[in-house]
Amino acid sequence: MLRLSTQSSDFSAQLNRLLAFETAQNPDTDRAVAEICADVQTHGDAALLDYTARFDGLSAQSMADLTISADELAAAFDRLPDEVRDALQTAARRIESYHQRQKLQSWQYTDEDGTLLGQQITALDRVGIYVPGGKAAYPSSVLMNAMPARVAGVGEIIMVVPTPKGERNDIVLAAAHLAGVNRVFTIGGAQAVAALAYGTQTVPQVDKITGPGNAYVAAAKRRVFGTVGIDMVAGPSEILVIADGSVPADWVAMDLFSQAEHDEIAQAILIATSPAYLDDVAQSIERLIANMPRRDIIQASLNNRGAMILAQDLDDACAVANRIAPEHLELCVENPEQWAQKIRHAGAIFMGGYTSESLGDYCAGPNHVLPTSRSARFSSPLGTYDFQKRSSLIRVSRAGAQQLGQTASVLAHGEGLTAHARAAEMRME
Amino acid sequence: MLRLSTQSSDFSAQLNRLLAFETAQNPDTDRAVAEICADVQTHGDAALLDYTARFDGLSAQSMADLTISADELAAAFDRLPDEVRDALQTAARRIESYHQRQKLQSWQYTDEDGTLLGQQITALDRVGIYVPGGKAAYPSSVLMNAMPARVAGVGEIIMVVPTPKGERNDIVLAAAHLAGVNRVFTIGGAQAVAALAYGTQTVPQVDKITGPGNAYVAAAKRRVFGTVGIDMVAGPSEILVIADGSVPADWVAMDLFSQAEHDEIAQAILIATSPAYLDDVAQSIERLIANMPRRDIIQASLNNRGAMILAQDLDDACAVANRIAPEHLELCVENPEQWAQKIRHAGAIFMGGYTSESLGDYCAGPNHVLPTSRSARFSSPLGTYDFQKRSSLIRVSRAGAQQLGQTASVLAHGEGLTAHARAAEMRME
Repeated sequence: MLRLSTQSSDFSAQLNRLLAFETAQNPDTDRAVAEICADVQTHGDAALLDYTARFDGLSAQSMADLTISADELAAAFDRLPDEVRDALQTAARRIESYHQRQKLQSWQYTDEDGTLLGQQITALDRVGIYVPGGKAAYPSSVLMNAMPARVAGVGEIIMVVPTPKGERNDIVLAAAHLAGVNRVFTIGGAQAVAALAYGTQTVPQVDKITGPGNAYVAAAKRRVFGTVGIDMVAGPSEILVIADGSVPADWVAMDLFSQAEHDEIAQAILIATSPAYLDDVAQSIERLIANMPRRDIIQASLNNRGAMILAQDLDDACAVANRIAPEHLELCVENPEQWAQKIRHAGAIFMGGYTSESLGDYCAGPNHVLPTSRSARFSSPLGTYDFQKRSSLIRVSRAGAQQLGQTASVLAHGEGLTAHARAAEMRME
Repeated sequence: MLRLSTQSSDFSAQLNRLLAFETAQNPDTDRAVAEICADVQTHGDAALLDYTARFDGLSAQSMADLTISADELAAAFDRLPDEVRDALQTAARRIESYHQRQKLQSWQYTDEDGTLLGQQITALDRVGIYVPGGKAAYPSSVLMNAMPARVAGVGEIIMVVPTPKGERNDIVLAAAHLAGVNRVFTIGGAQAVAALAYGTQTVPQVDKITGPGNAYVAAAKRRVFGTVGIDMVAGPSEILVIADGSVPADWVAMDLFSQAEHDEIAQAILIATSPAYLDDVAQSIERLIANMPRRDIIQASLNNRGAMILAQDLDDACAVANRIAPEHLELCVENPEQWAQKIRHAGAIFMGGYTSESLGDYCAGPNHVLPTSRSARFSSPLGTYDFQKRSSLIRVSRAGAQQLGQTASVLAHGEGLTAHARAAEMRME
């Protein structure tokens, strides 16, 4: 694993190289996606059936064969082993409780002229949740996307999940049941995104699409952005651990693994304030990796994109964290709250040795859909607020129209917009 | 002006045709923008100087010639006529007061296991404001984009504004001074967006870009989305007026003009509950339009994209409004608050006859950057919250780790992610 020190003269350049990740859109992917989207927009269900046969090896006579009913979702939930059902329910309850606190509320006030100003909050009418199929079929992702929509009060939640060769994942369907998903279609890829964005004879048009997917799904979401809302275009997952040596090295090593096991291009970085602790974690990694079923992926991720960074002190470490703007930040330090206040950019901050990232991934309550690739500089975790929107409210009183009319008239004339000025002046006495 | 009735058998299809607007990306524009962005990313300032000479007819030796200092902004403010300076200050004060109420606050709580959960709010470090130049140079747009960033606590606000052939707009520069803009570069187009997104030797990289622009600016924003945040890709401006006949027809006609005068493709629609009132407004339009300096634009907009719709009653009218999801909605009715509650999708709701849209455009307080082209179905006005972001906070207690560890372990094994499970199990006793 790469070792760096913040005191190296070229640390800044080394860090840039470490974080560099080519997110540029691939023109070939874009072209293919443009064609698929146009095809679904024009031919609707027929195009969906065709692409699903071609890409997922799943032949269907009609969209009815690609629809999973609410009864089937409930049946999947009922046949889960008790232990799994309990775990899903616990996670759902905690996610719901946290996301309730994120709910936006309408407000209004009246100023001294009697002018009413405010903000009216409404939920989205209908949203689409994209859930990847195959090896990356994650029930936790169903909960994390659908529960906030449900808490926000969204009228209808449509889920799409590809089922290559017809293989369905019971826990995914059970999670959909638990999260209150209304309808499920077993379609995926760019064609599923297009169906949700434009609507087909069977798939209703939604107002927003959330959820992770491969490069085709990402390109399709970028393309339909504007026609519908989208959450974000996610990059590889990342963890940054800041350690002062007070947390067992084995725990930190396993937390790095839990990021690295996602993907060869996932990124796990450790910053510590002593070289000895970096050595301890390196030894833990070497010892523990042998028993990990996904050790090849972990090894590739740590070799290609991992790093251990020696910092001068925790202030120095926090400064580096703010440059990285990580998706997940673990503060494996004493008094973590104190240091969390110095963090300006991070998707989620896990404080103290008992807070493994994996607890947050599944069940602590906050969302696990977090800004990647330094986008925590400008964006937030997926939340209830992503399924609500605001309308400004203005009611100007007769008295207010006299004052405001004067100001608006001057500014409108300054911009050469006479009708704007006249509209304001007409209300003045 | 087109007349429709909600009672026509083909009303729904007619409404769809009325609202249809081709927002598809133009491949030629996309290609040109891709080239400009790559060029600025590679050649930095040199590319900016080149494009500015070519597209804006403004030759400069170095970026210093394309930079407006804080002193120059202050000087522009000082030499404004008193009336204009007062109007700008009044508008700024009201915009600030409203946007203060939108500020997100951090929160946290501790659950029964002693697990701390919360949300930490931080402002963006640096944002870029795009301000169009030439005929559409709007000082109000400077206030509406920069003030929320300032209220949010953004560290640095960079403004870009093209000055074709060197022509600067004093009121725009004065507004920048008033809104606390830190630096101004006289660049525009896709090259300005690329400079803000990637940074050059002179232009610092920002975290988010907001503000309206032409098709090239819109395509560039779409392209850099992900590297930086963007506000939205705006379409033509729209107003929908719902009238019960209680507001003078001349006022309503002028409010329709004030939308239509922006652009031949702007859209102004009136829904009323009586044919007689539609006739009254039609007569007002005919009488008033002759004296409007921008009558050709107004006429083109009303002919091409305007409409008068007869509704059965106000419930019917609100249902149509929710289908249109207008950027601006005027409720020119008695008891407007009652009807506002039935509106699910609108950027801003102007209640009662004294609340002309133009008051909201300039100085009522709420933002005039609003979701267009039906995107009020899933998005909100620009606000203070767009310049803040959230980080989830989690601190699991030793006791909490026992409970949560069990749940996380079961779900992680269910997803085949052993390191996730082991990380949770290690914290269990």
